[in-house]
Amino acid sequence: MSSNTTQITEDAIHATTLAWMQDRGVDLDEVAALVLYLQRDFYPDLTPEECRNHVDHVLTKREVQNAILTGIQLDRLAEEKKMDDPLLDMILRDESLYGIDEILATSILNVYGSIGMTNYGYIDRVKPGILSRLDNKSSGKIHTFLDDLVGAVAASAASRLSHNRKMEQERGAGQTTETGS
Amino acid sequence: MSSNTTQITEDAIHATTLAWMQDRGVDLDEVAALVLYLQRDFYPDLTPEECRNHVDHVLTKREVQNAILTGIQLDRLAEEKKMDDPLLDMILRDESLYGIDEILATSILNVYGSIGMTNYGYIDRVKPGILSRLDNKSSGKIHTFLDDLVGAVAASAASRLSHNRKMEQERGAGQTTETGS
Amino acid sequence: MSSNTTQITEDAIHATTLAWMQDRGVDLDEVAALVLYLQRDFYPDLTPEECRNHVDHVLTKREVQNAILTGIQLDRLAEEKKMDDPLLDMILRDESLYGIDEILATSILNVYGSIGMTNYGYIDRVKPGILSRLDNKSSGKIHTFLDDLVGAVAASAASRLSHNRKMEQERGAGQTTETGS
Amino acid sequence: MSSNTTQITEDAIHATTLAWMQDRGVDLDEVAALVLYLQRDFYPDLTPEECRNHVDHVLTKREVQNAILTGIQLDRLAEEKKMDDPLLDMILRDESLYGIDEILATSILNVYGSIGMTNYGYIDRVKPGILSRLDNKSSGKIHTFLDDLVGAVAASAASRLSHNRKMEQERGAGQTTETGS
Repeated sequence: MSSNTTQITEDAIHATTLAWMQDRGVDLDEVAALVLYLQRDFYPDLTPEECRNHVDHVLTKREVQNAILTGIQLDRLAEEKKMDDPLLDMILRDESLYGIDEILATSILNVYGSIGMTNYGYIDRVKPGILSRLDNKSSGKIHTFLDDLVGAVAASAASRLSHNRKMEQERGAGQTTETGS
Repeated sequence: MSSNTTQITEDAIHATTLAWMQDRGVDLDEVAALVLYLQRDFYPDLTPEECRNHVDHVLTKREVQNAILTGIQLDRLAEEKKMDDPLLDMILRDESLYGIDEILATSILNVYGSIGMTNYGYIDRVKPGILSRLDNKSSGKIHTFLDDLVGAVAASAASRLSHNRKMEQERGAGQTTETGS
Repeated sequence: MSSNTTQITEDAIHATTLAWMQDRGVDLDEVAALVLYLQRDFYPDLTPEECRNHVDHVLTKREVQNAILTGIQLDRLAEEKKMDDPLLDMILRDESLYGIDEILATSILNVYGSIGMTNYGYIDRVKPGILSRLDNKSSGKIHTFLDDLVGAVAASAASRLSHNRKMEQERGAGQTTETGS
Repeated sequence: MSSNTTQITEDAIHATTLAWMQDRGVDLDEVAALVLYLQRDFYPDLTPEECRNHVDHVLTKREVQNAILTGIQLDRLAEEKKMDDPLLDMILRDESLYGIDEILATSILNVYGSIGMTNYGYIDRVKPGILSRLDNKSSGKIHTFLDDLVGAVAASAASRLSHNRKMEQERGAGQTTETGS
């Protein structure tokens, strides 16, 4: 890190992150559905709207945007074969000993503390909803990074939800105050 | 970190780690069973002995020992109520927003790269075998840290197994060469 | 993690974190001075008050509080010799191969992204101001965890400051809008 | 991660990592010089050869190779402008809020435990030797990732050195036994 000059605004980085996700086939309501899948047993009154709200907030964080932009760029460059072997081969095959996709996912999870790790690991293995579709190689699309990033966003949104629910509970059922993160 | 004098040998630290685990009710064959649970679908010829071998190797690493000794000490001090609130209460209840147990578990996983994180998250949620017993609060024992540490050791052993299997495969089926880590 | 019942409020956890830090000799203005030390070359107009504001915000995060409470508890229990060897010996000597203090520090840094790691490592080695005092063993006090935690809080506050400054810059010099984290 | 078939050997991945580093101007003796810079105060008898030996061992680890190959690929693609904005702009400018370079560096450090983090942060800020050259933008080369990766390899080699020295010390000065990692 060295330059501090501002050339691209934070708002533009946020907007591009959302655009790239959509362009790669990610519907944020499907990400919210993963949050609901993870948390409905703990909060029976949970709605898709509340889940979606937390997904939207997670995506405003710069560290989350950095990971998503870098991962999607790598997926696309691999798809277009604009990389060199052996890295290209590892990413195309989602090779089992290549774990940089999990590293980028962890950088998302860490922003919301360690409690999201279990949820991330669980849905990454069970692959409900959108994660199953992204993992399907038959489309010709390469989503080696994207499936892990989407799982991490959902797990982080679940962590944020837990934090907020606890705060609300303490402040009384009538209010829906949010913590700032 | 500052002092470099050697007062306690590495061998003694290793031996104490194994003794403390046994004392808290962890049978290493049960940890090996978790590795088998995680990996048997990928390697049909996998035996409990091979899994146990990897568990034993993971436990020789100093970072792993540091995390286990610290976590078990915290469990015991909480059990004996030799801590102060609100920390005591958080650990006794395994409170959902207290994630230092997952933090220590991650320090184990990281030694074997990021590929163990998914396996860790999965068994932490599904809780097969010994993990279910450790999670059971009815015994009066506090295992807030230990269940996460055991899951992390199993997931790390699974990662080590995958690395070694790939090396063996490359070197020909007749040899069972090991990588050093 | 399992129980979701609320027994201790988030406000009480926050207040206890501040009280424990003060009780162990940490003046938050000294932590703010570390932030100023790290950032004054980049922002010539930076004041101690602005730095202190970011330190205060970092300390409202639950993950940060979890790490501080756990670390200070371990320091105190070691000081009172209420731990067992070899862990007691490692913590009393701040042994060079025992890195759980750095692990807890990292859990603080991660909340504000990876950009704080360099600042943390730098002040942990150079030990300006309060860090030098905490590192001094002659007092009879054990601060094996606390010095790393204080360094991590300062480095995290520096990261938060950088994020906010960039946002302010984009929105025009007159406003001092804050991002929420 | 899904496919387990072996197409590219581990030896080929190792060899490519070394070739890519050399191609980007990294002389491993200069990396060894960073290790000497970090550790000579603690071990007055330390030689460049012993440091180089540890650098070489760190580079045999798959997680380290994954991070280096990915980072160098990103540097090269940015240099050739084969990326899209705003990511391209962030990497070209080594933008201060873009921390994926530090994330990849951390994935290297973690393999050798948390004790390398301080050393990494220190040399990343002080920039001795090769790190100063890589950080120099006047060459037209983009080393946004490479400088952090080289610093992380040096800090990891310093950690490995500390572990090995402690083992040797315990086993008697005459032997130079190595631990396996």
